[in-house]
Amino acid sequence: MIKGKVLSDYAKLIIKVGVNLQKGQGLEISCPTQKRDFALALTKAGYNAGASIVRVRWQDQELDKLSYTYADISELCHLPKWLIDSKNYLVEKNFCYVAVSADDPEAFKNIPAEKLFAVSKARAKALKKFSDNMMANAIRWCVVSVPTLAWAKKVFPNNKNAVKLLSEQIENAMRLNQENPSTAWQKHIAVLNSRAKFLNDAEFEYLHFKSSNGTDLMVGLAENHVWTSALEKAKDGVYFMANMPTEEIFTAPHRERVFGILKSAMPLCSNGQIIDEFSITFKDGKIVDYSAKKGYEALKGLINTDSGTKRLGEVALIGKNSPIAKSNVLFYNTLFDENASCHLAIGKAYPTTIKNGDKLSIKELEKLGANDSREHEDFMIGTPDLSVVGIKKDKSTITLFSDGEWVI
Amino acid sequence: MIKGKVLSDYAKLIIKVGVNLQKGQGLEISCPTQKRDFALALTKAGYNAGASIVRVRWQDQELDKLSYTYADISELCHLPKWLIDSKNYLVEKNFCYVAVSADDPEAFKNIPAEKLFAVSKARAKALKKFSDNMMANAIRWCVVSVPTLAWAKKVFPNNKNAVKLLSEQIENAMRLNQENPSTAWQKHIAVLNSRAKFLNDAEFEYLHFKSSNGTDLMVGLAENHVWTSALEKAKDGVYFMANMPTEEIFTAPHRERVFGILKSAMPLCSNGQIIDEFSITFKDGKIVDYSAKKGYEALKGLINTDSGTKRLGEVALIGKNSPIAKSNVLFYNTLFDENASCHLAIGKAYPTTIKNGDKLSIKELEKLGANDSREHEDFMIGTPDLSVVGIKKDKSTITLFSDGEWVI
Repeated sequence: MIKGKVLSDYAKLIIKVGVNLQKGQGLEISCPTQKRDFALALTKAGYNAGASIVRVRWQDQELDKLSYTYADISELCHLPKWLIDSKNYLVEKNFCYVAVSADDPEAFKNIPAEKLFAVSKARAKALKKFSDNMMANAIRWCVVSVPTLAWAKKVFPNNKNAVKLLSEQIENAMRLNQENPSTAWQKHIAVLNSRAKFLNDAEFEYLHFKSSNGTDLMVGLAENHVWTSALEKAKDGVYFMANMPTEEIFTAPHRERVFGILKSAMPLCSNGQIIDEFSITFKDGKIVDYSAKKGYEALKGLINTDSGTKRLGEVALIGKNSPIAKSNVLFYNTLFDENASCHLAIGKAYPTTIKNGDKLSIKELEKLGANDSREHEDFMIGTPDLSVVGIKKDKSTITLFSDGEWVI
Repeated sequence: MIKGKVLSDYAKLIIKVGVNLQKGQGLEISCPTQKRDFALALTKAGYNAGASIVRVRWQDQELDKLSYTYADISELCHLPKWLIDSKNYLVEKNFCYVAVSADDPEAFKNIPAEKLFAVSKARAKALKKFSDNMMANAIRWCVVSVPTLAWAKKVFPNNKNAVKLLSEQIENAMRLNQENPSTAWQKHIAVLNSRAKFLNDAEFEYLHFKSSNGTDLMVGLAENHVWTSALEKAKDGVYFMANMPTEEIFTAPHRERVFGILKSAMPLCSNGQIIDEFSITFKDGKIVDYSAKKGYEALKGLINTDSGTKRLGEVALIGKNSPIAKSNVLFYNTLFDENASCHLAIGKAYPTTIKNGDKLSIKELEKLGANDSREHEDFMIGTPDLSVVGIKKDKSTITLFSDGEWVI
């Protein structure tokens, strides 16, 4: 277990480097009821950093599972206005928002995927204003993890020390075992930003992904796209880190310029269900075919959420020697797994990955090729022999990845 | 610990006998994060009884304590509109409401009483519409308890089995150890209702409370007052039990007809603070003097909440041989302690203790003598030698209590 001084150091890191809370700001923490100790540590760190008020929005997958099991779909799909208002309130009042992601990857494995996706569709629709604002950095937010028993058991099955092992992995990925974690993160971000600069200077029109597993995909990049790290600037001008840990640099694909086929490199855990060994085919940016050995219904539900979930909204580059990748642990949690592998996302593009994107309307963003949707779901395509070649407008090329790792 | 089958039986009892949930109704459970097992059991019992949807509103005194410690009073006093709406929503949608009361009696002992009462004043003001509706039985609600470590330690200090001992007390008070708890409760309520009938037939104008500890108090009763047990009829015509356990029968005092002095018989735990060995003097229904050996500032804060907290809103009769009283345990929790002793409440009167009171305006209720306030706080005056004499309009008297017990 992460506890004692390590837990409070962790909380401090999230408050200072993650959401970068400024004196007088409100803070909301979304946290599973099982991780009450972390919620308390974050609350304390928040107040010590000068938070005006701290509120915890408790999550509980066991309660959710009971609701999914017993309640009618119409009840589950109804979000009271006060609940929607409570999320938009965070934007209106410029709260910092910490989301603790510690789901049981298979919490909802016995719930019909149809029901799950009807609910997640309704939620995404009702909360679109909030998620649009979050993705446009109208507030400073940070997704972060702590181990729970159910999650640890999935990562280290049949191991009595599962929680301890997962804790060690998280401490390592979060650089909590380094002398000054905050400084370690600054150095790390500088490396990511130098790569982003290289890619921005190159102004590629396409990236070509190819792997022996069958992936052969041309991903066009949006006009005026910007490569960025998870260190971003919020609308109020203050920097923050939207994900911790983070190893990625990412940008917006062109919603109409994706061609070919991709094969998944890892399972995707979405909405308490696992999708594995899947394949997706694109034409003119749109998904025209897909298959999955495990979780086909969940993949189908995801792709059919809205018109935007049939196109890509993110392309991200991570080498196979990233600290998280080198651990060789499959986390069944996107926050970690996406930082061990090149990945793409179905759904909405971050407006911040387009030049001045936070000032553009959805129509204007779409015109440049940045996709819109109520969803944004990452999935991993980075195999050990993945090659990535950047293609410029003049057709000249630069090899970016060879055998799954950066070569620039 | 109350767990396993006993816990699920307990949850069923609350859902069926407490809020008497009807098929298709929503259910909200207010519960401390430490009592997650009970929230889950109540949720399951709710769905099994046909709840359309169950939501849990988590409480956490440790988080509250951090907020009281670090946040400015103005921040603490601000209740966002969505939060107020979320409570009124329960009335609009006719939800059942279960409130799990398991506070640490001294959670906020180091917080200035001034700060606590400013906040509770602001909360009471913002949530008046909801609490008015609850007290008028616009929805079916039930206050109930489960043991927590902090609470058990206060009740059984320096005892390693504190939680076990408190669990046994609660199981006993809730009649969970009887063969059919539901039937046991029906029998018990029938006894309480027969006493209420006797008092209603008598139509007393005053009750005279007298004890060797110095209590000498004339409590006038409101015009058209009704004595009732905790078994009440909600606006939708369905019966429910507002408190479990309950041993009381109670009615509305006349807000302008209380004279004399009362001495407390037990400590009062209010808002995470303890008020003990206190005394209150009334003239024409109004508090004109008060003192307390412990928690004077808390008592002062309570009495000065609004104009209504300077008058009485409830008078309740319980014999010293009630099962809870006979346990000789001081619970430091009003839900239990008020059922071991005759008690009064400062603040709002239940409109349901006036004939057709749920159809009357606050002005009309006040004209009959029923007090209005944002607060309602019970406190115990039942000593082992308490006598209670009922005085009719024609000045004839009937002795109701002698040596702390019913004599009718």
